[in-house]
Amino acid sequence: MNYKMIGKFIGRILLVEAVFLFPALLISLFHQESEAVRALLITIMIIVAVAGGMIGISRGSQKGFHAREGLVCVGLSWIVMSILGCLPFFLSGAIPNYMDALFEIVSGFTTTGASILSDVESIPKGLLYWRSFSHWVGGMGVLVFLLAVSSGDERNKGFTMHLLRAESPGPKVGKLVPRMKRTAEILYLMYVLLTVLNVVFLLIGKLPLFDALCTAFGTAGTGGFGIKNDSIAGYSPYIQNVCTVFMLLFGINFSCYYLLLIRQFKSVLKDEELRMYVGMVLGSILLITVNLKDYYATLGETLRHVAFQVASIVTTTGFATTDFDLWPGFSKAILLCLMVVGACAGSTGGGFKCGRALLILKGLHRSIHQIIHPGKVQVVRVNGRMIEEKVMENTNAYLAAYVLLIVSSFLLVSLDGFSMEANLSAVISCVNNIGPGFAEVGPSCNFGAYSLFSKAVLIVDMLAGRLELFPILILFSRTTWRHR
Amino acid sequence: MNYKMIGKFIGRILLVEAVFLFPALLISLFHQESEAVRALLITIMIIVAVAGGMIGISRGSQKGFHAREGLVCVGLSWIVMSILGCLPFFLSGAIPNYMDALFEIVSGFTTTGASILSDVESIPKGLLYWRSFSHWVGGMGVLVFLLAVSSGDERNKGFTMHLLRAESPGPKVGKLVPRMKRTAEILYLMYVLLTVLNVVFLLIGKLPLFDALCTAFGTAGTGGFGIKNDSIAGYSPYIQNVCTVFMLLFGINFSCYYLLLIRQFKSVLKDEELRMYVGMVLGSILLITVNLKDYYATLGETLRHVAFQVASIVTTTGFATTDFDLWPGFSKAILLCLMVVGACAGSTGGGFKCGRALLILKGLHRSIHQIIHPGKVQVVRVNGRMIEEKVMENTNAYLAAYVLLIVSSFLLVSLDGFSMEANLSAVISCVNNIGPGFAEVGPSCNFGAYSLFSKAVLIVDMLAGRLELFPILILFSRTTWRHR
Repeated sequence: MNYKMIGKFIGRILLVEAVFLFPALLISLFHQESEAVRALLITIMIIVAVAGGMIGISRGSQKGFHAREGLVCVGLSWIVMSILGCLPFFLSGAIPNYMDALFEIVSGFTTTGASILSDVESIPKGLLYWRSFSHWVGGMGVLVFLLAVSSGDERNKGFTMHLLRAESPGPKVGKLVPRMKRTAEILYLMYVLLTVLNVVFLLIGKLPLFDALCTAFGTAGTGGFGIKNDSIAGYSPYIQNVCTVFMLLFGINFSCYYLLLIRQFKSVLKDEELRMYVGMVLGSILLITVNLKDYYATLGETLRHVAFQVASIVTTTGFATTDFDLWPGFSKAILLCLMVVGACAGSTGGGFKCGRALLILKGLHRSIHQIIHPGKVQVVRVNGRMIEEKVMENTNAYLAAYVLLIVSSFLLVSLDGFSMEANLSAVISCVNNIGPGFAEVGPSCNFGAYSLFSKAVLIVDMLAGRLELFPILILFSRTTWRHR
Repeated sequence: MNYKMIGKFIGRILLVEAVFLFPALLISLFHQESEAVRALLITIMIIVAVAGGMIGISRGSQKGFHAREGLVCVGLSWIVMSILGCLPFFLSGAIPNYMDALFEIVSGFTTTGASILSDVESIPKGLLYWRSFSHWVGGMGVLVFLLAVSSGDERNKGFTMHLLRAESPGPKVGKLVPRMKRTAEILYLMYVLLTVLNVVFLLIGKLPLFDALCTAFGTAGTGGFGIKNDSIAGYSPYIQNVCTVFMLLFGINFSCYYLLLIRQFKSVLKDEELRMYVGMVLGSILLITVNLKDYYATLGETLRHVAFQVASIVTTTGFATTDFDLWPGFSKAILLCLMVVGACAGSTGGGFKCGRALLILKGLHRSIHQIIHPGKVQVVRVNGRMIEEKVMENTNAYLAAYVLLIVSSFLLVSLDGFSMEANLSAVISCVNNIGPGFAEVGPSCNFGAYSLFSKAVLIVDMLAGRLELFPILILFSRTTWRHR
């Protein structure tokens, strides 16, 4: 294991985090939030000190950086980033319990949006900004950001490739253009553009700049932290509809936007994952609207609420305009399924990912064909291209790991004695980085009531879910730490 | 598709069913249950007529019988067997609604044990016998029985092999000895022996012969239909303990018993699936007992109830001695996990099967290794033997089909508006052939309240679960019915 290289990299990540904390500091200064200012300053100093120390003791070897190091690097840097990034909440007293503060920032970075706060509006503005901004950073990934802005150390291609593969959301990203640094730049360029567009549309709806920024961060990262106690419910229908549209946009594979940029419109229209995603969204809206008839005053209102909630859940954002826990069972069952499938691969959304579900479905279809016609050799194709067996194997391993993580976390969380519905949906919600669940963790409630142990389990779930399981899972594997 | 061969075979299956109905007729005659006698007689005549017709019009071609035909044959024969086998309940008026009667017999044949009856004790004895006997037949499989007793048409080896593979419970059976007919004989011989032993132990506990027979049938098939309204709760602790032991015994891979017969004791002790099964059972008993402390009067009573319920759930039998729906969340979560994993492959128990879970776990372990050391080629081994990639692929396809079936059934059943806990556990219970679920379908309740549509969905689930998914799933595939 190349500890020096890992240490150096985590140190650089922490410096980025320190820089990201500055806007929050400025906002707190402007609003004269003395406790928050103090906490943010101390945090920045601690982070810089830790980062400096790590970079200082990690001089040397650039070689020997493989897939294993890449995964460990990503897993550890997210953990360290969270351990230090939650300090502003803890030190300012806004969240008096350290584990709660950690839960909150992990929920932020992983774009989950599950909160332990019952009164969001009492939190200082600077900290609210940091809380929402963590979604934006986590959505595209802080390592991807570092690659995009760094001096472009192309001597070590394997290094950057392994990092990008391990952190970027979804299996497809990282193949836009051959050069990794350029890919990271393009990704962040599109991400910034879409976010700015989102802010503009929110400002047109007369939302104050602070609200618009925080809401756009939560939308862009498909995170879901709101800055009001009623999430998005208090905003005007126009604002809600803007959120619906942008949540759905951020749930689309960013390679589709890249294809649009280079004018390959046909490839976008024919993209099978995009078609599945659109079909799933429209189908769910239709079914729930029918199921909910007479639940709201007008059909228009029903459609607005249903479209918002479906968009929020399928993209794993987790904003809410209405308490969907009160909806009838069928509608809730659809939402639960959407939670599991999630958004497109290569988007900022979480979940199992449409692309993976598509591969699993096609693999199953092939297996049934092969049972019926054992002699025929059949291949799986997506968008006309043959899928390698290696990819099918990895997708199956992912499904297995996914099921196993959900089942074992569900068991552990059940120790707290909440209802089965709450426990299962809490775990599914955290693994898929959604935010709210049902029953005791429904959209009108929060995760504060869970025990410290359960919160720790859910923290691991959120990190594992955001980093596509393996960077976190291999931290628990003996083979990872064994000398070769 | 070789329709003639399929028709002939289903005809022969039906004749076996008619023969199996006779003991029920005798019992009803003895107890002077005139309605039941009439219903049973009419049913037998209908079955014989249908069977005769099918065999009559299906003379001819022995050739062209492949895997496809084998699967279709098994799927269809179970459906036809159920459609006619439920007639005694319906015609006698014991279950006035045909769909309910169908649900009950499918639940019987598939060894699920989920019931729509709220007052079991009001059902005539002859019909109760038929209801319990359906478990025994379904446990090992009626086609396997036919192979064991038939004249041994070895001209068409492919035919018998495809049938046995498709129906026998679990991937391993069918490899005991090279000849298929001999394998079927050995399986039924061990099955009968164990059942007789079970009856003897129950008789020693002073259970009346009728009760002992019915209870043994439910145990042997890991079915779970009781003949009392309180399932097994009213029987003495001795009887309950006998049931616990025999449920666990019937959940073991029958090839282990074969190995014992041919004195290969070491192979049995080293069998990885058996070790996993035993470990899971003991671990669950321990954890639940700790979780339940002070719930029952004495530790002995706690242990008895816990061991019984764990055995009943893990083997997917579904008997109950206590209402485990009232247990704390952690204990219920363990039971839910046991429901999903199920018993050993090649036993009469259902579920995903320990053997498959073992393969999935080992496959996942391999994937993690391969991520860490991409250069190394690694194989999966069970009991020291290398597992073919084909088997791994099929196991993954099975997991995908399993998850998909549960998710889609859960969606459809949710239309009835019951709680999420009830809907999810009802579907899991039916797919895994267990019986009771939680909440509205807990051990003290029944499935009667579900709508006809939901019952139809659950009937498909039970059949798909018992026949290891594919014989039922391919009936819905276009490729199956297409001419080559």
